[in-house]
Amino acid sequence: MLEDLKKSVYEANMELPRRGLVTYTWGNVSGIDREHGLVVIKPSGVDYDSLTPDMMVVVDLDGNKVEGDLNPSSDTKTHLELYKAWKEIGGIVHTHSPHAVAWAQAGQDIPCYGTTHADYFYGPIPCARQLSQKEIDENYEKNTGTVIIETFHNGSINPIHVPAVICHSHGPFTWGDDAVQAVYHSVVLEEVAKMALLTRQVNHQASQAPQRIQDKHFMRKHGPDAYYGQK
Amino acid sequence: MLEDLKKSVYEANMELPRRGLVTYTWGNVSGIDREHGLVVIKPSGVDYDSLTPDMMVVVDLDGNKVEGDLNPSSDTKTHLELYKAWKEIGGIVHTHSPHAVAWAQAGQDIPCYGTTHADYFYGPIPCARQLSQKEIDENYEKNTGTVIIETFHNGSINPIHVPAVICHSHGPFTWGDDAVQAVYHSVVLEEVAKMALLTRQVNHQASQAPQRIQDKHFMRKHGPDAYYGQK
Amino acid sequence: MLEDLKKSVYEANMELPRRGLVTYTWGNVSGIDREHGLVVIKPSGVDYDSLTPDMMVVVDLDGNKVEGDLNPSSDTKTHLELYKAWKEIGGIVHTHSPHAVAWAQAGQDIPCYGTTHADYFYGPIPCARQLSQKEIDENYEKNTGTVIIETFHNGSINPIHVPAVICHSHGPFTWGDDAVQAVYHSVVLEEVAKMALLTRQVNHQASQAPQRIQDKHFMRKHGPDAYYGQK
Amino acid sequence: MLEDLKKSVYEANMELPRRGLVTYTWGNVSGIDREHGLVVIKPSGVDYDSLTPDMMVVVDLDGNKVEGDLNPSSDTKTHLELYKAWKEIGGIVHTHSPHAVAWAQAGQDIPCYGTTHADYFYGPIPCARQLSQKEIDENYEKNTGTVIIETFHNGSINPIHVPAVICHSHGPFTWGDDAVQAVYHSVVLEEVAKMALLTRQVNHQASQAPQRIQDKHFMRKHGPDAYYGQK
Repeated sequence: MLEDLKKSVYEANMELPRRGLVTYTWGNVSGIDREHGLVVIKPSGVDYDSLTPDMMVVVDLDGNKVEGDLNPSSDTKTHLELYKAWKEIGGIVHTHSPHAVAWAQAGQDIPCYGTTHADYFYGPIPCARQLSQKEIDENYEKNTGTVIIETFHNGSINPIHVPAVICHSHGPFTWGDDAVQAVYHSVVLEEVAKMALLTRQVNHQASQAPQRIQDKHFMRKHGPDAYYGQK
Repeated sequence: MLEDLKKSVYEANMELPRRGLVTYTWGNVSGIDREHGLVVIKPSGVDYDSLTPDMMVVVDLDGNKVEGDLNPSSDTKTHLELYKAWKEIGGIVHTHSPHAVAWAQAGQDIPCYGTTHADYFYGPIPCARQLSQKEIDENYEKNTGTVIIETFHNGSINPIHVPAVICHSHGPFTWGDDAVQAVYHSVVLEEVAKMALLTRQVNHQASQAPQRIQDKHFMRKHGPDAYYGQK
Repeated sequence: MLEDLKKSVYEANMELPRRGLVTYTWGNVSGIDREHGLVVIKPSGVDYDSLTPDMMVVVDLDGNKVEGDLNPSSDTKTHLELYKAWKEIGGIVHTHSPHAVAWAQAGQDIPCYGTTHADYFYGPIPCARQLSQKEIDENYEKNTGTVIIETFHNGSINPIHVPAVICHSHGPFTWGDDAVQAVYHSVVLEEVAKMALLTRQVNHQASQAPQRIQDKHFMRKHGPDAYYGQK
Repeated sequence: MLEDLKKSVYEANMELPRRGLVTYTWGNVSGIDREHGLVVIKPSGVDYDSLTPDMMVVVDLDGNKVEGDLNPSSDTKTHLELYKAWKEIGGIVHTHSPHAVAWAQAGQDIPCYGTTHADYFYGPIPCARQLSQKEIDENYEKNTGTVIIETFHNGSINPIHVPAVICHSHGPFTWGDDAVQAVYHSVVLEEVAKMALLTRQVNHQASQAPQRIQDKHFMRKHGPDAYYGQK
């Protein structure tokens, strides 16, 4: 079942080591079939070298395994919370890419210092708060999702305009129309996180790009009158 | 038409990913045929993996497409402004290479800390100011070029002696005799920007190289009595 | 003799350059056969390019060579001290990987800033003190081991829960169930050391991850109710 | 003539791009035949991709070209000064490797923070002063050598014990028994320069390794009772 989705989620997973975003098994990609309410996700702790499309695990939105011999990613419940809250997204990625992790471990939003950032993320990339002891004990992975959603809700941030978050003391999640675009956003996030750190090293007092420049760059790619590319 | 120029501009574009200067589609190279007043440039938003010489777009100096099935780079008008203002240049490159972007996002000129820099750039690499709301609304890409030209004019900088600029909150443009040399300057710029940042990390109070050393190194490569290489 | 162990120690040694952890000959891996009390270790100063399984040297726990044409690693006595003190470990690695060395040279424990660290190391990675003149003169390599053991003893650190140390002004040692896992821990240590440095660059006042998050991540992988992976 | 030396100097030159130490043509290696007083060196400004053994240039110690169709490296006179002053050395390398350049541009000696450094360099790697206007005008490349020699003389540094220097506002030179060992020292220098910068980033107040540790590590590899390796 869902052979096409499994194949594309498999391919999206394999893109992570090719892009240098993961060490060993540190990352996972999922994709959703909205019609059937089923999510395809990487199995937990399996090396990318030995991964095959038919190892992908299918779960429903309550986390029940529907198909697959292996355990799904330990982060599956985080993915499910985001899919349930945000109907427009079709793929999710989690990595421990080093520069995004650095900002997450420092507990700071990634400022929008320039057009590389503004071409993909409309405003700072928010840092979600640490979970409480109760939230950890109750359901750590599910509540990781809950806190991400809370972050976007409280900050009035549109997850389609800012398709990434960093979780304090942990690392990044990104999403997109499908698994392929979600991986694309993980690559951009890591590059933008690196540039932001280098920027701060040049000038610790660097300011974010003026709103007018952020508007221009985000809109020329994503606004109603977008004119970047071949569309 | 312009088959040789298209081929060389294509090859120069392909050098960007080989040199590690671009992520995805973030960069573009153009070259000009001065006799016919025609510019060959990369199409907008096309992956380097699928790029071919015949996808190159030909435009005139007013930006009218003369040949090509695809839209030219969204930065085309910036290239055209520079070609019109500086008759000696034959190729232009734009990238988002990370260390050059860091200095651009920090809004600071790249100081000339040593001979690696002085071998190619005679003085600091200037940071062009941010555009105003009016300049963005009126014609963002054209005015990006205007502000670059203003930067060199106001600073009395010779664009042949300093074949690079960084645009505040954005990133670098470089140029040269042709597309190949413009790419060469992009590679050197990124290396020099990295070295300058590392220098500042060793010693935040580091001084620029004395004028006498900058003179010696620029002149032994580019002066009337140059003796570097096989000429 | 010990052909399987020699082969696996050889393979573990070859993983070091593949993972980018060593320059030239700067590193060594050993493994122990607990039943016979024999240790297999890389020969001293031999390039990885010319290394073969039958070059591995076999020594007993007193450091006597039992088999092999070459001198064992100059760090052999450090390995032996750790094997004698910690009966549960089966493999040991020493490298000069740059970020772990940086923390060692700075003389600071590597703080546990997040889950990447807590997934493998339960608490900070300790920095062992410098040896005294007497300890150096008496037996430098043996006493390097003694001081590592002292560090874990005085700090009440369980070497199974924190399978790594950095030696002040020197560099890292890691260990594990066998040579393969010890190398795995060297790779993770270098990545964690890099992330910790980047974290401090974002925010020099960054705090360690709360104990509740360290507990959760270490336990979900290594506790009695671990649920990461396919077990 | 000198076919073996030309071949080994060629091979040593080609090792520079393989080790990631040079961009474009930024580097050169030479070797000396002490018996005949002849030096073999890379030609000036030639790409490593098109370099062949028979392009190597032979000069005498006064800088007269004895064989070769091409101009020798523009840094030839610096090499010659060092060969004339230090009879024990057989090969010299100049690069613009980025971390060594950073310390050179910052104008600071590279401190000996640990054993990786002490295994090859006995004490800090000195930073030679900038040349005066007179020294530049008179004979820039020759006087670069003179100032390096002055640095070692004034600092009572043995060039065999510290086979590297960084020239203020410029970059590194290294040397050794032959061209191959000189390249080896360039690789180590870049790695040590990187580690020293990372060390300072962890702890800006980091101290050099105690003298007793520097003594131990340099001597166990290079002293009369050296026991590292297979000798």
